[in-house]
Amino acid sequence: MLVSELDTPALIVDLDVMEGNLTQMADYCRRHNLRLRPHTKTHKIPELARKQIESGASGITVAKLTEAAVMIDAGLDDLLIAYPIVGPAKTARLARLAERAKLTVSLDSEEAARGISAATSERGTTVDVLVEIDVGFGRCGVANETEPLKLAQTISSLPGLNFQGLMFFPGHFGVEPEERAVLRAQVNGLLDRCVETFARAGLPVALVSGGSTPSRYESDQFHGVNEVRPGTYIFNDRNTVGVSAASLNECALSVLVTVVSTSVSGHAVVDGGSKTFSSDRYQAEDGRGFGLIKEDPAAEIERFSEEHGHINVARSDRRYSVGERLNVIPNHVCSTVNLHDEIYGVRGEQVETVWRVAARGKVR
Amino acid sequence: MLVSELDTPALIVDLDVMEGNLTQMADYCRRHNLRLRPHTKTHKIPELARKQIESGASGITVAKLTEAAVMIDAGLDDLLIAYPIVGPAKTARLARLAERAKLTVSLDSEEAARGISAATSERGTTVDVLVEIDVGFGRCGVANETEPLKLAQTISSLPGLNFQGLMFFPGHFGVEPEERAVLRAQVNGLLDRCVETFARAGLPVALVSGGSTPSRYESDQFHGVNEVRPGTYIFNDRNTVGVSAASLNECALSVLVTVVSTSVSGHAVVDGGSKTFSSDRYQAEDGRGFGLIKEDPAAEIERFSEEHGHINVARSDRRYSVGERLNVIPNHVCSTVNLHDEIYGVRGEQVETVWRVAARGKVR
Repeated sequence: MLVSELDTPALIVDLDVMEGNLTQMADYCRRHNLRLRPHTKTHKIPELARKQIESGASGITVAKLTEAAVMIDAGLDDLLIAYPIVGPAKTARLARLAERAKLTVSLDSEEAARGISAATSERGTTVDVLVEIDVGFGRCGVANETEPLKLAQTISSLPGLNFQGLMFFPGHFGVEPEERAVLRAQVNGLLDRCVETFARAGLPVALVSGGSTPSRYESDQFHGVNEVRPGTYIFNDRNTVGVSAASLNECALSVLVTVVSTSVSGHAVVDGGSKTFSSDRYQAEDGRGFGLIKEDPAAEIERFSEEHGHINVARSDRRYSVGERLNVIPNHVCSTVNLHDEIYGVRGEQVETVWRVAARGKVR
Repeated sequence: MLVSELDTPALIVDLDVMEGNLTQMADYCRRHNLRLRPHTKTHKIPELARKQIESGASGITVAKLTEAAVMIDAGLDDLLIAYPIVGPAKTARLARLAERAKLTVSLDSEEAARGISAATSERGTTVDVLVEIDVGFGRCGVANETEPLKLAQTISSLPGLNFQGLMFFPGHFGVEPEERAVLRAQVNGLLDRCVETFARAGLPVALVSGGSTPSRYESDQFHGVNEVRPGTYIFNDRNTVGVSAASLNECALSVLVTVVSTSVSGHAVVDGGSKTFSSDRYQAEDGRGFGLIKEDPAAEIERFSEEHGHINVARSDRRYSVGERLNVIPNHVCSTVNLHDEIYGVRGEQVETVWRVAARGKVR
């Protein structure tokens, strides 16, 4: 099948670009002795998780237990669930899944630790545990160096849990190298104090899992980090380019759309809106635009309805006509993929493969 | 099963509230002699489409052909596809579906009309056609009174098409009654001129399909409108309340979430983010907040990560604790439902039914 034969809207992945992205990240990790544990939230496709393992990853990351189940069913056997698992329904499922794969969880509260311990010890299984520390993003995680130790000591004392180390997410890192250097120094200070405090308490920190998209090729400059969890790098997107973490020709995924209306002057409408792309905003520059049109970067996708993408063509010399097709790089590829049941892998004009987004909609 | 036994995040619909919403809209339409053709994009569930028919709707509206196919498979037999159907793959499918149900399509270009005509006439089927006019929203639709006539005359001359009338969407109507009255007068002027122009040309306008959420109980004040296509009214949401089109106790759907972290001071994190709610913004007041927490309306959901909802609890007296559950009314319920595979219908504490969101992900 040819790309020109695909009905729209359709998500298409340039396989050459994607394979290049996988190789580049695996090489970086090998060079710096970092374990690579890609976050599969970006694609939610077991076949791509396996490709990541084949290209050098030592395991995968997921956010949800139901995603973990899909990946384990597909043969993945070393997973980090980078999300606090809370509540008896979930801890029971976690304890059962731990019979089928090596599982690590991250958490930041005694409540979460005790809940998981109760379930795994009852089931006779064990999970590795990372204590999440907040390095300034302010989402999850315990701050300073004494709280993590207290929580780690609790974890060490509980059955069915195996304290492994620390996890953090430097998601507040900006675009400017100077700003990143300052923030990195702060994070390194906290990491140093943590490791020192743990050493003094006689509790070894085997694993420090870190990294984020903007800081992804600087992970080797964080003290003690020996594992990274990049997600977006497999496809990249307009936001990754916007924060200078990738170039446009490293964007592997685009949304193929059709122009369905040009009747309103100065505008063109394509057959993809928020239910095709998501409403996620552009995180760089002036924040404007809901995607980049490869055929016409000067045009602005200024607004989404649910099924309409509104292109302002006033600043463009291009003429738009009903029926023509365009390729759009989405702002945030993880959210876009999450709206679709399948993705097409293409090489040139040839559709080489169709993947089912098997872990899509696995919200629990 | 009890609501307290549902794992989170979960979409739950208060059946009493939903049934009240259906009755209220059906009564309004009966009182004003308006045909009710609800837009099923809000729920994408055939069982709910049937409930709408049973409560007085004369047909349904969908946005996509693949949604239409799901609804037709479930026995719905009178559908408006309120979207320009463009391209040979789609027109061929449309022509086939027209063998199984009475179909109406809306369009705003000769290209779309000719494409559909070629497919339906080849297949020996016919579809009714509405010409979409732009009444100021600037999305799709031809403006003024002469363009619609020209397009309608083309449609009338083509085989496999049956010109039925006009469609419009007053989506730019604001919250203030005075502003709405001014805009309504403008729309009515255009509608009057259209009907007059069509009458002079000897082309009867059998159907005028109009309405939007903010203007939904004013549809009887639009000249000549004899059909409305409300969608959100079945559930309502924070935006519907924000534009004064519903009250909070008419919101039938909420997202049940669990607090998973309180470790960052002044904040609480719940297990639903943009992949559970969508990133759709609040369209009223200051635009802040990504949903309304029923248990604590003073708290602000200030940010979503993909799987984290970040609640700022600084302005709230409530204490949040890991493991407790909250009910959140989403900003935009259509986008929220579109992210989920099933919805729970509850009465009081009892889970009465589970619906599969069968037309979710039907993007083509």
